[in-house]
Amino acid sequence: MNEFEIIEKYLALKAKNRKDVIQGVGDDCALLKVPRGQRLAVSMDTLIAGVHFLPDCPADDIAHKAIAVNLSDLAAAGAEPAWITLSLSMPELDKQWLAEFHRGLKRMVDYFGVQIIGGDTCRGPLSITIQAHGFVPQQVFCRRSTAKAGELVCVTGDLGDAALGLLIAQDKMTAPSKGIKDHLLKRYQTPYPRLAAGIALRNRATAGIDISDGLLADINHISQASQVGVLLRWERIPLSNQAKAVADKDLLMKSALAGGDDYELCFTVKEDELEATQKALEMVGSPCIPIGRMTGKPGVRMMDEDDEVDLSQFNQFGFQHFSKGVGASHWEI
Amino acid sequence: MNEFEIIEKYLALKAKNRKDVIQGVGDDCALLKVPRGQRLAVSMDTLIAGVHFLPDCPADDIAHKAIAVNLSDLAAAGAEPAWITLSLSMPELDKQWLAEFHRGLKRMVDYFGVQIIGGDTCRGPLSITIQAHGFVPQQVFCRRSTAKAGELVCVTGDLGDAALGLLIAQDKMTAPSKGIKDHLLKRYQTPYPRLAAGIALRNRATAGIDISDGLLADINHISQASQVGVLLRWERIPLSNQAKAVADKDLLMKSALAGGDDYELCFTVKEDELEATQKALEMVGSPCIPIGRMTGKPGVRMMDEDDEVDLSQFNQFGFQHFSKGVGASHWEI
Repeated sequence: MNEFEIIEKYLALKAKNRKDVIQGVGDDCALLKVPRGQRLAVSMDTLIAGVHFLPDCPADDIAHKAIAVNLSDLAAAGAEPAWITLSLSMPELDKQWLAEFHRGLKRMVDYFGVQIIGGDTCRGPLSITIQAHGFVPQQVFCRRSTAKAGELVCVTGDLGDAALGLLIAQDKMTAPSKGIKDHLLKRYQTPYPRLAAGIALRNRATAGIDISDGLLADINHISQASQVGVLLRWERIPLSNQAKAVADKDLLMKSALAGGDDYELCFTVKEDELEATQKALEMVGSPCIPIGRMTGKPGVRMMDEDDEVDLSQFNQFGFQHFSKGVGASHWEI
Repeated sequence: MNEFEIIEKYLALKAKNRKDVIQGVGDDCALLKVPRGQRLAVSMDTLIAGVHFLPDCPADDIAHKAIAVNLSDLAAAGAEPAWITLSLSMPELDKQWLAEFHRGLKRMVDYFGVQIIGGDTCRGPLSITIQAHGFVPQQVFCRRSTAKAGELVCVTGDLGDAALGLLIAQDKMTAPSKGIKDHLLKRYQTPYPRLAAGIALRNRATAGIDISDGLLADINHISQASQVGVLLRWERIPLSNQAKAVADKDLLMKSALAGGDDYELCFTVKEDELEATQKALEMVGSPCIPIGRMTGKPGVRMMDEDDEVDLSQFNQFGFQHFSKGVGASHWEI
């Protein structure tokens, strides 16, 4: 078995052939057909060992997360996923590692019905770059820049679990039970992108983003792009019982507001659309939790009951780039 | 100026807005329109410092080459380039390096009329992953698998220059004059993809590939995918005067047959189409040099006048992956 065959075996996953793939893996280019009336939505993300995942993270979880992170961007845009390209750089050809990586890829690719259509593999420091391709009718593409003052801000699920899972993975924290530990670790290592929710939000969400860098950093993108302010309410932020079992209020705030890696969707809706939106999301198994409101006053602010929270204390977490530490050095262009 | 602004300034190149880009850099996804009747051709390649380019290579040349390598895959498929996504990982935020990198990006993007539509940037070992997107009518997409016995094998230009340029860049060889040195270095560091040739070859080339891994490795892809053999003629292989000035026959063979990084196109044509093909390529400033013929006998063979060359001696160069050394560890899936 030569290197080409190993790569084909572990990465190409040729079995699944979508009808919109005219030529997949195995030529200079993939050749693809975007369905009539649909636009192509693409997103690219790189995950680097020691930066975006711990070096000892199981290979199947690395594959899972690399796919999830990219599909989450499609979810935020309301796109339906179709194709994946994957560039894998690894220090040496390790068949056992590749077999595990393959298991993680296959799990995600099968679950979401996407096809790996090409990519590249080379020797180098362990890192994975994935580009996800999806379809969306032009008029329902969900942007960051279209929120308006008065609209509600909602999220699709608990925040902060992933940041706490990272602390557990780094042995910086212990959990009181295996169930709690597993829940938080899973939320950090193998998130599921909210693709069905993204599609259900078409024509309902007025703006949206996925929470990858932390709620404050990501809602700030909506705020800046839409040129409106945000007023959040701490008591409305959804927190899991598992998170509450391991963290005090300080750490809960840090994790939920600036932790990142949650991959829930954050979006805005008109107030009179909230109930219909909650029903639509319930149909696809996703919560729809209002956590605040867009305002005319610029900037991101948060109330904790009657007191305003000083959000500048979180700047050193979610907003920082090129700082040291897993999860703090990633942004999009 | 914060990191977001630096990245926007140096990588986004927002000025050029193609009409088929509905949403470019700055949202979770780019939103794109593939013209009616066209198919989407995509190719992804990663370049890693110390593997695909020398660590001291000027940043503008790194950008140039990263774009060129990907557009060359589009050229091989006969596609017209449109969009670029780019993931840049770098050890630290170096404004001077980014400014140089930006210059190289801008040169290529402006020259070929493509737009950078998104990507990712993060802290990590220096590496660049680019995905190129182009358009091609389905029926003229040029594959590797459609060559037939009896057809001629042609290339679009001199082979071996890039491998000799690498030796010069590594200080493993000296050139007798600055002109010769500059020519070979340029061929290695800043190749120009044969995009116009690729489009001119639509409906003429029966199969094609770009020469990235070395002529023997790449023609072997056509041979295997098409299930036909190849008989090359050494005396027909185009060699530059600059290459002949620095290398003896042994090194010329090694460089031209197994060196890689030339980014000329290698394609097959029916014999009675050769003249028309040569005229079509002349119109776009590209040579069209027959170097051999596809045969019914499997495998890649080469004659040097009346003697058959033992090609196994080149296996350790072009065919090897995960070996040490720049230019020898790259392949596609």
